[in-house]
Amino acid sequence: MKIAQVAPLTEAVPPRLYGGTERVVAYLTDALVELGHQVTLFASGDSRTKGALEPIWPQALRLDPRVLDPFAPIFMMMARVIQRADEFDIIHWHLDYFGYPLIRLLHVPSVTTLHGRLDLPELPPLYRVFGEVPVVSISDAQRTPLPGPNYVATIHHGLPTEPLRQGTGAGGYLAFLGRISPEKAPDAAIRIAAMAGMKLKIAAKVDRVDEVYFNERIKPLLALPHVEYLGEIGEPEKGDFLGNAAALLCPIMWPEPFGLVMIEAMACGTPVVAFRNGSTPELIENGVTGFVVDTEPAAADAVHRVLALDRTRIRAEFERRYSARRMAEDYLALYRRLIRQKALGRSRVELTAVGGR
Amino acid sequence: MKIAQVAPLTEAVPPRLYGGTERVVAYLTDALVELGHQVTLFASGDSRTKGALEPIWPQALRLDPRVLDPFAPIFMMMARVIQRADEFDIIHWHLDYFGYPLIRLLHVPSVTTLHGRLDLPELPPLYRVFGEVPVVSISDAQRTPLPGPNYVATIHHGLPTEPLRQGTGAGGYLAFLGRISPEKAPDAAIRIAAMAGMKLKIAAKVDRVDEVYFNERIKPLLALPHVEYLGEIGEPEKGDFLGNAAALLCPIMWPEPFGLVMIEAMACGTPVVAFRNGSTPELIENGVTGFVVDTEPAAADAVHRVLALDRTRIRAEFERRYSARRMAEDYLALYRRLIRQKALGRSRVELTAVGGR
Repeated sequence: MKIAQVAPLTEAVPPRLYGGTERVVAYLTDALVELGHQVTLFASGDSRTKGALEPIWPQALRLDPRVLDPFAPIFMMMARVIQRADEFDIIHWHLDYFGYPLIRLLHVPSVTTLHGRLDLPELPPLYRVFGEVPVVSISDAQRTPLPGPNYVATIHHGLPTEPLRQGTGAGGYLAFLGRISPEKAPDAAIRIAAMAGMKLKIAAKVDRVDEVYFNERIKPLLALPHVEYLGEIGEPEKGDFLGNAAALLCPIMWPEPFGLVMIEAMACGTPVVAFRNGSTPELIENGVTGFVVDTEPAAADAVHRVLALDRTRIRAEFERRYSARRMAEDYLALYRRLIRQKALGRSRVELTAVGGR
Repeated sequence: MKIAQVAPLTEAVPPRLYGGTERVVAYLTDALVELGHQVTLFASGDSRTKGALEPIWPQALRLDPRVLDPFAPIFMMMARVIQRADEFDIIHWHLDYFGYPLIRLLHVPSVTTLHGRLDLPELPPLYRVFGEVPVVSISDAQRTPLPGPNYVATIHHGLPTEPLRQGTGAGGYLAFLGRISPEKAPDAAIRIAAMAGMKLKIAAKVDRVDEVYFNERIKPLLALPHVEYLGEIGEPEKGDFLGNAAALLCPIMWPEPFGLVMIEAMACGTPVVAFRNGSTPELIENGVTGFVVDTEPAAADAVHRVLALDRTRIRAEFERRYSARRMAEDYLALYRRLIRQKALGRSRVELTAVGGR
C-alpha cells in the first residue's frame, strides 16, 4: 500500500525533545515500512524516518528562530499533499481539522487521527460542518466530550519494542515522570508515596506556565525525606528510571486522552497505579498491569499490591497490546476498509472499535 | 455579478473597535451592492452589511469569551464557502493564504487581497508553492519585500464619502491619530510640532505591548506645553478631530502597506505630512494633498507649506481617488478580467496596476 503520513511541523518526527503526536507518527511510519509498505512522510526537514521524507520546512518550526508565522508552512504542506495526492492509496492526517476542507475535495481516501483533548467549545459546531470526515480516536474515553464526529475506530498508541526493556524494579522506588503541573498532581504522588511508606523519585520538567505552581505548591514538598527530585531526564535515562521503579504513579486529575508514559512503564515491566480519569481504565488491566483507583488512600493501598505483580507478564502485555507493530496493523486494517468503502462509494463507515484488547 | 466576500472572523464587519481589514471589506461590500451587484458576505454573525450575510460564528472571535481556538471557525467558514462556491461568479478572499489550497481546487475563480505587511520570512517559500494564486496588493510599495506572488492589480483602499466631511482646520493644531508605538513615532510628531511652533493633539490608544514604551518614552513628553493628549477617541469624534486640524502628521518609521488614517484626513480636507515610507508617496500628492518628507526639520518646514493648500481640493482628490465606489469599480474590472481569463483557460493574468491615479 502507498501511504502518506501528514505530520505537524512544530516538532521534528520524532521530536528532539517533547511532542507526543510527532513521536507516534514516527513510530507508526517506521512500523508500516517494516511491514513492507511504502510510506511518504510529510514533515519538517530535520525528521528521521524509515519512510520517504517529503521535507516541507528545513527545521521544526518551534526551533527555527526565523519563523514568525507558524501557519504559513502548514499551508505549503497542504499544497504539496494536494499535488502528490494521486500517488497514494490513503492519506493519514495528524493536523486536527486543518486538512478537513481539502479531504472532501480529494479523490484519494483520507483518515485523521485526533491526538488531543476534545472538550473545546469550538469543536461541536466544527463537527456539525465536518460530520462525515473519518476520524480515529486514540481511546474511547477521548470521545466522551465530543460524540459528533464520524469515528471510524479507536486505535491505541504503540511503541517500538526497543530500546525500552523489562527492568527489575530493584530500585524499590515509586516513579513520577513527565511534567510538574496541577493536572498531573505531583503533590498527590508525594502524599501517596508517604502513605505507602515508599520513596518517590520525580523526573519532570517545569514549563514556564507552571513555574508559579511549582515554586508555591511543589518545591516545599521536595524537601521531604522520602522525595527525590531529579529534574528533567532525557530519553536515554528513561529506560533505567522506569525499569528500576517498583511502580509508576499517575494520579492524573484530568481526562487525558492517552498517556504514553503509562505504556512506557509497561514496556519496562513496571506496573502503573493511576487515578480513574481519561484513558486509564482502558490502558491498565487491574491486577495485571497495575491498578486504577479513585482516591489517594486507595492508591497507597494499590502500591503494595502491585509489588506482587509479575513484571514479565506486564512486559508481555505491553508487547501484545501496545507495540508499534500492533498499532500499525490496526491502522492497516482501517486503511483497507476505508479504501474499499470509498471505492464502493459509501460515505459513512460504520463505527468500529479496534485496539489493544 | 454574484460575488462572495470571505472576511476574517476576528472582528465583525465592520468592526466594533479596530480592524483595518474588516473595515475595508465592509466598505467594499456595501459599495458593490450600491453598484447593483449581489454580494454574499461570509463573516461573523454580528456583522452589518448591505449584502447577504452568511454568519459563520455568532460573534466576532476576539470578543467571544467562549472561543479558545480561533482557527476552528475559519475552517468551518472554508467548508461553507466550498459548499456554496458554485453560486458565485467570483470569490474574493481576505484571509491571507488560508484559502490558497482550496482556491486551486475550485472551479469558480478567486482573488485574494493581501492586507498586511509582506516582509515575513515564511512568505517567499509559501509563494514559491502558491505562485499562481491571483493576489491584489493594496499599494505598489507593499510588494517590495515580496516580488514572487502573482499580483494581478494594485487597488488602493477607499472610504465611503460620508460621514467624514470637509472641515475648516480652524482648530489650528497638528493631529496625530492612531496608536502609540515606536513605528508610528509619536515622539517625532511632538518634536516636529515644536519645531513648527504649533500645537499637537494626540488621539491614540496604547496597546498592552506598547505600555512600557508609552510610559518610558512618550508619557514624559506629554507634559510639554504644546502637546495635548486626548487618549483614545471613537469613530464619532474622528471627523471633528481631523476636520479641525490644520494637518495630520504621519512620521511613520515602517513600510506601512497602506494607512487608512491618511485618506481619512483627506476626506476631511486635511493635508498630510508624512515620512517617506511604505505607501506614503503613492497616496500623498506633493503640493496638493500634503507633503512626503525625509527628516523632522523637513516635516516642520512642510507643516507651514501645507497651511496654504486648498482644503476643498484635498476633499475633491479624496472623492476622486479614495472613495469606496472607486475601489469597488476597480475590483469589478478585475473580477471581470479574472472571470474571462478563467473561462479562456489562461492561468496567468498579466500584471496590471490599477488604482487611484
